[in-house]
Amino acid sequence: MMKANLKKKILPLAVLSTVAFGSLVGTFNAQAKDDEEKNRAEIKNVIFLVGDGMGVTYTSAYRYLKDNPKTPEAERTELDKYLVGNQMTYPEDPNQNVTDSASAATAMSAGIKTYNNAIAVDNDGTEVKTVLEAAKENGKATGLVATSEITHATPASFGAHDESRKNMNAIADDYYDELVNGDHKIDVMLGGGLSNFVRNDRNLVEEFQKDGFSYVDNKEDMLKDTNDQVLGLFAKGGMDKMIDRKEETPSLEEMTNSAIKRLNKDKDGFFLMVEGSQIDWAGHDNDIVAAMSEMEDFEKAYKAAIEFAKKDKHTLVVATADHSTGGYSIGANGIYNWFGAPIKAAERTPDFMAAEIAKGADVEATLKKYIDFPSVGLPELTTEEIESVKAAATTNKAVGIDNAIEKIFDKRSNTGWTTGGHTGEDVPVYAFGPGKELFYGQIDNTDNAKNIFDILKNGKRK
Amino acid sequence: MMKANLKKKILPLAVLSTVAFGSLVGTFNAQAKDDEEKNRAEIKNVIFLVGDGMGVTYTSAYRYLKDNPKTPEAERTELDKYLVGNQMTYPEDPNQNVTDSASAATAMSAGIKTYNNAIAVDNDGTEVKTVLEAAKENGKATGLVATSEITHATPASFGAHDESRKNMNAIADDYYDELVNGDHKIDVMLGGGLSNFVRNDRNLVEEFQKDGFSYVDNKEDMLKDTNDQVLGLFAKGGMDKMIDRKEETPSLEEMTNSAIKRLNKDKDGFFLMVEGSQIDWAGHDNDIVAAMSEMEDFEKAYKAAIEFAKKDKHTLVVATADHSTGGYSIGANGIYNWFGAPIKAAERTPDFMAAEIAKGADVEATLKKYIDFPSVGLPELTTEEIESVKAAATTNKAVGIDNAIEKIFDKRSNTGWTTGGHTGEDVPVYAFGPGKELFYGQIDNTDNAKNIFDILKNGKRK
Repeated sequence: MMKANLKKKILPLAVLSTVAFGSLVGTFNAQAKDDEEKNRAEIKNVIFLVGDGMGVTYTSAYRYLKDNPKTPEAERTELDKYLVGNQMTYPEDPNQNVTDSASAATAMSAGIKTYNNAIAVDNDGTEVKTVLEAAKENGKATGLVATSEITHATPASFGAHDESRKNMNAIADDYYDELVNGDHKIDVMLGGGLSNFVRNDRNLVEEFQKDGFSYVDNKEDMLKDTNDQVLGLFAKGGMDKMIDRKEETPSLEEMTNSAIKRLNKDKDGFFLMVEGSQIDWAGHDNDIVAAMSEMEDFEKAYKAAIEFAKKDKHTLVVATADHSTGGYSIGANGIYNWFGAPIKAAERTPDFMAAEIAKGADVEATLKKYIDFPSVGLPELTTEEIESVKAAATTNKAVGIDNAIEKIFDKRSNTGWTTGGHTGEDVPVYAFGPGKELFYGQIDNTDNAKNIFDILKNGKRK
Repeated sequence: MMKANLKKKILPLAVLSTVAFGSLVGTFNAQAKDDEEKNRAEIKNVIFLVGDGMGVTYTSAYRYLKDNPKTPEAERTELDKYLVGNQMTYPEDPNQNVTDSASAATAMSAGIKTYNNAIAVDNDGTEVKTVLEAAKENGKATGLVATSEITHATPASFGAHDESRKNMNAIADDYYDELVNGDHKIDVMLGGGLSNFVRNDRNLVEEFQKDGFSYVDNKEDMLKDTNDQVLGLFAKGGMDKMIDRKEETPSLEEMTNSAIKRLNKDKDGFFLMVEGSQIDWAGHDNDIVAAMSEMEDFEKAYKAAIEFAKKDKHTLVVATADHSTGGYSIGANGIYNWFGAPIKAAERTPDFMAAEIAKGADVEATLKKYIDFPSVGLPELTTEEIESVKAAATTNKAVGIDNAIEKIFDKRSNTGWTTGGHTGEDVPVYAFGPGKELFYGQIDNTDNAKNIFDILKNGKRK
């Protein structure tokens, strides 16, 4: 990572550097250009969804997973319906040319390339204005939704500024302390990360509540509460993966709908960023079961956004990824197949099972409790598979047990991996609603912010 | 592979099953729809380029490779300029759900899903009409260009019909024997595969010559010859990879330009399929040096097609891949970097070097003759690297030596692989010229043929 000459500055937003409303992607004829400008003037709301780590192997595998075996064709996913192109993800980091989530999110939130770890600051350490901040300046309501800590790299790059993504407490402070025209800049925050808000040195939950925000920590309360401004923290750190979640924990879809309902009360419109945070975490872990769990959570949230936009008619919905993770491949070891069925047989993630086994639960009983291969027409867990996990369990380390369980699914599904980190290939871009054509073709990750800044400029109430 | 009830039938093309001119992808408003129909009526020529195995990791890595390190941004490749979306590649094979090149090429040539190995026949073994055949029926000139045998799976699926891609002699026979309205259906054939044309049982070179075709076997003769109809075979089997090619062997760009020049003499227009065949072969071999060599060969051919189309204004150029290969990842082993420089240091492929070493050449001298790391600012070959190849050379088997040399480049570039076979993720689609909007968004590989059939139908001379 670059040693940037970085000074943390709390500046009034008006002096933050703003990205030039750069050249629009693609060439359009005059008529199309007129249509576009009319479209942009009609855009009241922007919902920007990030599937963290959701490279094209993930979106394609999810289609394989959801395929109806009774029909010859592969049914299209919700995402497929609105694919408009791909984007480049590379950072401008002095030491790395494959991006992390902070640099990529800063590109998408502020329209600039920067170093890995940067939270809405550039390579000189200067804070850069984000589309969320610009929306708030325009009088719009704003929201962040994630299944990671709500202070994690992706949401942080929309709502805070820091030299390092690791400073999650300082990022939570930014959410409270950095004001736009005297108001808190984020109206709705839903996700994990309680430990970054309630600390020995500060209780940001109480501070937000004092300023009129509701605070909720479970699904029921989130659904009941109707306040415009809300802080919802559903886990100390990251939330559970979808298939591991308890009844009282909301899904990404439920958080997204709750956010939209609140934000849509603002007559000036809203900007909402929604992150399917843990597709990436699953990729880092080389866990195909968790990856597909989080793809489903993300697809449902995306569908909710699309359904709102279809009714609303003045909402642009953009979905994309920041990078891909794990070097995941659909097919491996020379075999021309990838199977979703074994993954459907899992009722919990390998991590969840490994944690129970590490705490002393019986290996075979735990595996059989949470993996039902016969239910999807596959042979029951083999002795060899069970023994491989038992061998790992002798060390009593959850991570080794987790890896052994993951390998069962890798082998049965024929999944390949090359890394526990990120990879540099382009990722898909999806867009629906007025202004979608701005995102067509081969774009750069910075074009997302540039386009949204442009929309906000054109859509500004006089 | 499916046991299809297949009977090889030589049927007049008029009775071959034709694909319904299916629903067009995407939703367009009435004005756009009118524009499209006008555009399609203007399409005289179609150039369809296939980068075999050219998944999104290959197109993205090629951008990394070509990046100018003196500028902060990643320069766009020729392909990038006209990205319009991605396509699904899955086959309809009873035993495999990741496609091979034959099934994918049949999808793109005939608009139907079929089993792996099928050359323009469906799952019942029925021959299906290809866009090349439909173009010839419309009075257009037609051509196939490839760096593999010109009878290999991809070109074969446009110009022949067979239950198996393996029957390359029978495929060569088809090129001669299957007539459209009494004429040979392919006017220009340029690529490798002499051994499939000149055999003990038949000499198809002489047969074609007797019917007025020129025959050429080197670049100079290809460039000098101006006949409308030509058979050019530049290797017994597949041609050499670009960086291994001899002076007398034409590049894919030169073959493409030669084909266009001949075909463009037809006042009714033309259909040309061009394949960068060996991106895939490099992927199967897990050879990143060869893969980037073949990407460059393909990009130049693509650029030649685009340049013709820009001047011509009545030419649609579509480029895509049939699948990806190798589970290749940009970055591996937890490292957030991928380097093109080591690859630029190679003046020949590992295969080429390995063949010389296997024949008795000195390991260190051979490596240093063809790999110049200092020229790209990298440290010279290490003792460890040289020793790894020497160890492989003790067995005297070229394949082991090849693998050892490949690993040097994998490690220096930080390249990952998961398979020697294909992978199932979506692949990019590029389109330029009138009708390009038919290819926008998330399409299926069959949509390529459906769209081209539709264009041919609309563009038919009355």
